[in-house]
This record gives sequence, structure tokens and C-alpha cells, in this order.
Amino acid sequence: MKVSSLFLFSALLLLDTAAASPSAKPGKKKKKDWGNKKPKNFIMVIPDGFGPTSELMARDYVHWKDNSTTMLPVDGLIIGQTRTKSSDSYVTDSSASATAYSAGIKTYNGGVGVDSTFTPYATVLESLSLQGFKTGLVVTSRITHATPASYIAHTHHRDLESNIALQLIGHAHPLGRRVDLILGGGSCHFLPSTTPGSCRPDSTDAFTLAKGLGYNVFQTRSEFDKNPKLPYLGLFTRDHMSYEIDRDSAKEPSLKEMAIRALNDLYSATRKSKQGFFVMVEASRIDHAGHANDPVAHLHDILAFNEAMDAIREWIDGHEDSPTTMVATADHECGGLTVGGDIPQDPSYWYAPSWFAGSRASAGVLAKRFLAFTGSDEEKKKFLREEVLKPYGISDATDAEIQEAAKITSSGKLETWLGKAMGDRARVYWSTGGHTGADVTLYGYGPKVEEFAGHRENTEVADFIVDLFGLNLESVSRKLRKNQTWVDEWVKPAKGETMKASVHGH
Amino acid sequence: MKVSSLFLFSALLLLDTAAASPSAKPGKKKKKDWGNKKPKNFIMVIPDGFGPTSELMARDYVHWKDNSTTMLPVDGLIIGQTRTKSSDSYVTDSSASATAYSAGIKTYNGGVGVDSTFTPYATVLESLSLQGFKTGLVVTSRITHATPASYIAHTHHRDLESNIALQLIGHAHPLGRRVDLILGGGSCHFLPSTTPGSCRPDSTDAFTLAKGLGYNVFQTRSEFDKNPKLPYLGLFTRDHMSYEIDRDSAKEPSLKEMAIRALNDLYSATRKSKQGFFVMVEASRIDHAGHANDPVAHLHDILAFNEAMDAIREWIDGHEDSPTTMVATADHECGGLTVGGDIPQDPSYWYAPSWFAGSRASAGVLAKRFLAFTGSDEEKKKFLREEVLKPYGISDATDAEIQEAAKITSSGKLETWLGKAMGDRARVYWSTGGHTGADVTLYGYGPKVEEFAGHRENTEVADFIVDLFGLNLESVSRKLRKNQTWVDEWVKPAKGETMKASVHGH
Repeated sequence: MKVSSLFLFSALLLLDTAAASPSAKPGKKKKKDWGNKKPKNFIMVIPDGFGPTSELMARDYVHWKDNSTTMLPVDGLIIGQTRTKSSDSYVTDSSASATAYSAGIKTYNGGVGVDSTFTPYATVLESLSLQGFKTGLVVTSRITHATPASYIAHTHHRDLESNIALQLIGHAHPLGRRVDLILGGGSCHFLPSTTPGSCRPDSTDAFTLAKGLGYNVFQTRSEFDKNPKLPYLGLFTRDHMSYEIDRDSAKEPSLKEMAIRALNDLYSATRKSKQGFFVMVEASRIDHAGHANDPVAHLHDILAFNEAMDAIREWIDGHEDSPTTMVATADHECGGLTVGGDIPQDPSYWYAPSWFAGSRASAGVLAKRFLAFTGSDEEKKKFLREEVLKPYGISDATDAEIQEAAKITSSGKLETWLGKAMGDRARVYWSTGGHTGADVTLYGYGPKVEEFAGHRENTEVADFIVDLFGLNLESVSRKLRKNQTWVDEWVKPAKGETMKASVHGH
Repeated sequence: MKVSSLFLFSALLLLDTAAASPSAKPGKKKKKDWGNKKPKNFIMVIPDGFGPTSELMARDYVHWKDNSTTMLPVDGLIIGQTRTKSSDSYVTDSSASATAYSAGIKTYNGGVGVDSTFTPYATVLESLSLQGFKTGLVVTSRITHATPASYIAHTHHRDLESNIALQLIGHAHPLGRRVDLILGGGSCHFLPSTTPGSCRPDSTDAFTLAKGLGYNVFQTRSEFDKNPKLPYLGLFTRDHMSYEIDRDSAKEPSLKEMAIRALNDLYSATRKSKQGFFVMVEASRIDHAGHANDPVAHLHDILAFNEAMDAIREWIDGHEDSPTTMVATADHECGGLTVGGDIPQDPSYWYAPSWFAGSRASAGVLAKRFLAFTGSDEEKKKFLREEVLKPYGISDATDAEIQEAAKITSSGKLETWLGKAMGDRARVYWSTGGHTGADVTLYGYGPKVEEFAGHRENTEVADFIVDLFGLNLESVSRKLRKNQTWVDEWVKPAKGETMKASVHGH
């Protein structure tokens, strides 16, 4: 979402959210009454690495910009909080958390759809698919990344993304093709190692395999716009899709566009059947901006998440013939974000979201732009001031800052430097380049969601879906485990292989 | 609460919380059904400076200690989140936030029961008292501190605590004595300047004035234990009461003891009347430990808050003849607390609450203990290791650490140093010595509380109470404002006086 569209976006909030949400004025609550309806469909939304303060930081920016005090779309959908720890740490990674959400088990950081003995556990997506539901995965990261992987793949470590790609499309999955709709980034794990830009260690052509399994495969926005038929696999970028603030809408659809397309396609495909659909939508890169300690990229991906959530809520309201329940919750906080610092003049406590108003690109993109620039020292400093700091929103850089930044020779370090320069101005701080243990906010909408309100362990998200649809994950797990060759080859570490690499930067 | 009692405390949780709270297993929810009952009484609980991560930090400690995964008492009472900003900053102080909770208005940081033009606004406590409700204020800070002050006093700056003391008891309040029950610390603002330990700038004896206004006045635990009759004013300490971890139970009651005493006394006093009671209970010093960046003192005051909340919930359940609604929410986050850091070995993401197990005193008390110690350099280092770091929970201090700490000559600096030494071990970090803008968790229990669920602006807390009891705050505000002499003398800044001091460390 571009900044200019925020005005309309916020105006809509004033009209919509109060009436539709549980957060209207006391005594004036008009929550949509779903009666005793059971849902036909389920939407799981995961804003990755999105802590409570991420939302606050974005909301205060909108408040400053619009001189408003309204809620953002997801605020109106709050139903509780989620506890996130994994089986081996008070601070989870994305794969352990997504495995809790998908399979209802606690596992170690790094584990994908397996427990700490590498035993595979069936997911709600697999179980619903076997029952005839249509399924989808929609993300802005590589589609083989930890969160989507944990809904369909089973392997001892999240970094095995080329393995995950083949499980995802059903080629290396004991239950065959189980995902009908796939949208996101990460084509590199589908291209054979002989193709430039591939990340595969082998010559397997996963796109060709996917076609053989029935998928319509596409890699461009223009093909996406031609409304391909299910099942489809659309990957728009080699690596992760762009941060929202950097996104070229001619090349990559927004999270909202992908989510609504997914809902419409899954709805059409299940309109006449008793079974509905299940889709997992991930706002993947809120997390990456947290790891990079880049408040600007973080902010705009949060706004894009809010916009997608508002559209999803609206979609649910508009499709009462196919009742849909939605639960959204982050997998963990990222970066240890805090907002507000002490300043020596009144008011002593202060956060200044106005600093974000001038931002036009992420710190990562700008840092790479600078390192690609060649010129004299003076030209470099001018470029830094005009073409890096200014588009990042910093127009008052001191000479000392320019001097310091000009010396940086790694784009990762310049990315962090830019984030800190912005943070010091806006009074936005990060405590880590990794995750924290913070509880995350639990959101929900649609039939039966009140029954899930409260403080929840992350595994209870899967329990809720199991209860809603009467699933038997155990029996599906047994089917997975029966295939010993698959377990040995695709799930477990090879003999002598390190159990797991350390999990950094995800 | 002492560490040893936590075992029983947590065992109780397993039995109680799931059944009584909105957070039981999906499909097994057994929320207490209050039907259409209207509450007779209202309890407002404010854990000052208590962010979402404060609760997480404490819960994980209990999980580690008990090898459990259960919720803490307040987790089961979550109903939403509260937005906290003030009229002049995205980061509020306690007086602006408490004024939002008490009077339903946004004011500037530092303002107590007034808006930014220094116009007084009536509070729910004042309004309910005028309607015949009994009222109480129970805190662990000085009773004249910003949060309790904002329920009964009206003045342009929170630092005017000697002024606030006289409004509190009704001596300098246009509506006369309106608080029937007062428990907390801070007798220094009641003692005439001629008495040692007084903080008053004048020779006014506020305790004698209070007696003249009908209060039973006491300053010891033994008098508290003799069940004094209402109205009473019991202040146990000159300054704030002790942190829970430092509390001498022979001298100071716990927050839970004071809260339950208050509920029982207010219940008895209103048993036969149509009007019930209103009480504000503040877990005041969670905030102070946040300002000091002392995770140990923070932890134990959070556990004491949870224990008090569990007792309050139980009290409400046990008094169905006098239906009581309780809302609890912090006024703001404090310290920018985050929990979890990256470490070079597996699991990379880590928080180690086990470090808190050895803590026996707050950093503040231990820092003062060290600075009072006299001896040779070697004796000082030994004292530091054995009598300061060990009781703080740090038994593995390096020689370099001892060397560094031994050089510190200010107790405030040593307090922060101890907190950081503990934090670096446990992987608990603070970003500021002040507040942050974080949304805080909203808790509730009792009749009608579901109607208040959701994402709330802090002013809506007052709106909710106004709606529940049909109050007319405007008419009470007019009564206040009519007394122009009082407004000029007690509320407004004197001509030429600085509007407000900067607000630090509260």
C-alpha cells in the first residue's frame, strides 16, 4: 500500500470497523451475529514476526498522518493473546510456531511438521484436503520458508527448502498433491541447479514436476491477472517477494490482491460441494524487517497486513452463503521492538511517527543502491545524502552521520545503520536481530470465533480447527508414518548429519 | 509473595483458572454466566507500568520453576487491549492515563484530573461517592502519587503531592470527604514540615486534619490487623511501600491483603444499601522497577499483582449477593522490556528465567546496602560478591564485573548496573528508563464485562463505568468548577509559575 492510499483506508475504518468489530463504544456494540452457524471454510492468517508494539507503531503513524484516533482494521478483531514458546526454548522460531498452529504439537526450533524425535505429524491442511476441502498457501516470502512449509512438509530442518519444495507440490509427499493454490515468492528452489538463479543442490526441475502433477505454473503478474485455473502454483520472485514499500505493482501483486484472489478461487471451486476450503495467508516479511531492525519496511508491511485483513473481513461478510471463520495471530515477536524514549524537553516521553512520512524505500534496498554506486568520496557522500538517506525519510543527516555511513562497506551493516538512524529520530528501538518471547495478539472473525477468545497456547489454534471440522489428525499422521522410505529419505536427518543448524535470521 | 509460596499458587491455577476464565480449552469453555445481572460494585485495578512482556517474563519464570505450562491468574481474564496515549504525547505518563481512566478525558502528561486548560473534570469515584457509593483507594506507592491522585484530586501537576494529600482527605476538596478507605504508603506528605521525615513545604498536619474529617488514621500493620472502622486512612511507610521481594510482612501488608481487606470492609459498609462501592487498587511499583530497569523487583511485583487479582476474582465469585465488575489494565508500559536474545549456540533464540531463582532482594535495596558498607577495597569486593550479587541471584560474577561494580558510587547507578548484569544473563533487556507507547492488556471479570471486550481507548474505561452506573460526570464537574477560589488556589498554576515540570521517573 502506498502512503497516499492510507487516507482513504483510514476513512474507511471510521465507517466500517466500529460497526463490524467487537470494539465499538461501550453499550453500542454491534457485533455481526453468526448465530449457531458452523463455518464451511477456515482462513488462517499469520503476520510473521509481528509483536503488539508493531501494530502500535503503525497505528500511531496513521494517527499522526490523519490526525485521527481510530483503530486499524486488525485492532477491531482482537480476541486475545497467544503464547508462543517452542519445545526447546522460551523464544520460538517460525517453524516450531507454525508446526504448533498447523499440527497442534510443540516442537524444537527448526523442526517442520515433526516432533523432537523427527516423527511427522499431520497438519490441519493435510487432513482437510483428504476430506475434500480445497487448500491454499499465500505468502510474501519464499513459499518454501518455515511458515508455509510447516503446513504441508515434514522435515527435520527448515533450511532444507529444496526438499520442502518437492513435498509442497506433492512429488515427495506420501499423501500426494494436497495444496490446490500456491502464491508467493521463492522460485529459486524450483529451478534446476543448471538454471541461473537456482538455489537447488540438484538438477531436479520442480516446475516441470509440478506441471506433471496438474499445476498451472506461472511466474509473472500478467499471468496472475489472466485468472489461471486451479490447481496453480504462482511464484513471482526468485527469493522473497519485495517489501511492500519497495513493491513494483506491475510485477508483484500485493498481499491483499493475492489473498482475495485466493478466497475467490477457492470459493468458486467449492461452491457446489459440502466441503469448503482452508487457506493460510502469511504476511511474511514483517518479520524480515524486524530482523533487519528496519522500522520503515516493518511499518509498511504492517499496513499491508492490516489492509489485507480488512479485505478478508469484508470478504467474509460478503459471502454468508459460505460461512468462513478467520483466525490471525503472529508466530512470535521479532526484533524486540519498543516505541518511545525519554527526551530532555517536554513532553519527556515521546515517540515521533512523523519521521516515517518521508520514507519511500526500505533500508535494505537503499543500502544495496549505495554499495552499487561508484564515484569519488565527495560524490559518494552526496549520493548518500540525496539518494539514500532522503528516500529513507532522513533529510537532516549531519555531516558526522554522512561521514560514518560512507565508511560502511557491507549492505547488511548499512541497512541496520539506516534503521538505527531513523529509530533514534522517531524513538523506535530494537533489542535484538532475532526473536523475543513476547505474547502476540490473537485476532478472529466469523462463526464460532468467540469460543476461541482468551489467552491461548499456540497449539490450541490447531485444536480449534480440529474441533470445528471434526478432524482426526492422528489417523492422517499414521498414514504419513507408514511410508518408512519417505520418512528416512525426506524427514529424518541422514546418519551422521547434524540434527539441526542454528536458526538465525528467520 | 515469597518464592516458596509460588508452588501452591501455581497448583491452584491449574485447578481454578481454566474453569473460571474465558481461556479454557476450545469447546470446553465454562465461563461464569452472570446473565443480565447489573453490577452493584466496581473494582478498577491498575498495574502501573505493566506491559504485555512483563506478564510473559513472569509467566515463563513460573513455567520454568514449576515445569508447567499453565496460565497465570490474569491471563485467564484477558478481554482485549488498551491504547494509552495522552493529549500531548504518544507516550503517556501515569497521571494523564489515570485521568483518562477516572474522568474519561485525554490530558497532558503531568495533569491530574484536569484538561490542558487546567479545568477540573469530575471522576467516577467522586460521582459514585456523591450517589452514596462507598469508595476506596488501595496502592503500594505513596497515596499522593499520580495514579491514585487522579481519582480524587485536581491539580495542574502531579508533583504537587502535598496539595494532593489535602484534596484526598477532603480538606481542600470542594465536594468534601469522598474517599472512605485509603491504604498505601506516603505518610511524608501528611506530616508537618517540623516533623522529621516530612515532605511537606508547610506546617500543615494532614493526619490531624484527616482525624477532624472523621478518618481513623493508622500507620502500622498491627493497627491494620485490628480491623479499624471506616472511614480510615492507613499509610504504612513514609515513602512508597516496599517492593514485594523486599517487603517485611510484619510491617507492611501485601497488595492482596490490602485489596481483600478493602473489598470486605466496603462490602460490609454497603451490604444493606442499594448503592455499592467503587475501589481503585493499584499495583504501583511494577512501574518503579521498570524505571530502575530491575527485572527482579519487576518480576515479584508482577507475581504479587497476579496473586491479588486471583484473590479479587475469587472474592467476586464468593459474593454473588453483591455483584461486582472488575476491570484491570495498566496505564502504560514501562522500561521497554523485551525478553529473549540471540546466543551463538542452540537454541539460538533464548530467554533464561532460571536466573531469577536465586534472587532475594531488589537491586535498589542491595545497591544501598553496598554503598553503606565501609571497609578496605578487598572487603568491599567480598561484600559485593557475597552480600550484593549473590542475594540478587548472581553467583557467577566475574572478577571484571566485581571490579567494575566496586567503582560505582551512586546507588541509582549500581541499581541499574545490577539489573543489567541480571538481564544480560537471563536475556532480559530494557530500552529506556521511561515509558513506552505500547498497548497494554485489558482484563475484566464479572457482570457486563463481555460488553467491554475488544480494543479500547483508555478514556473508554471511564465511559464504561459511566454507562454501567448511569453517571453524569458533567454535572459533578460543574460543581467542582463553581468553586472558583478552590480552582485558583489548588488547581491552576499560580501566575508566573511554570506550567509543568518535566515528568521523569514516574
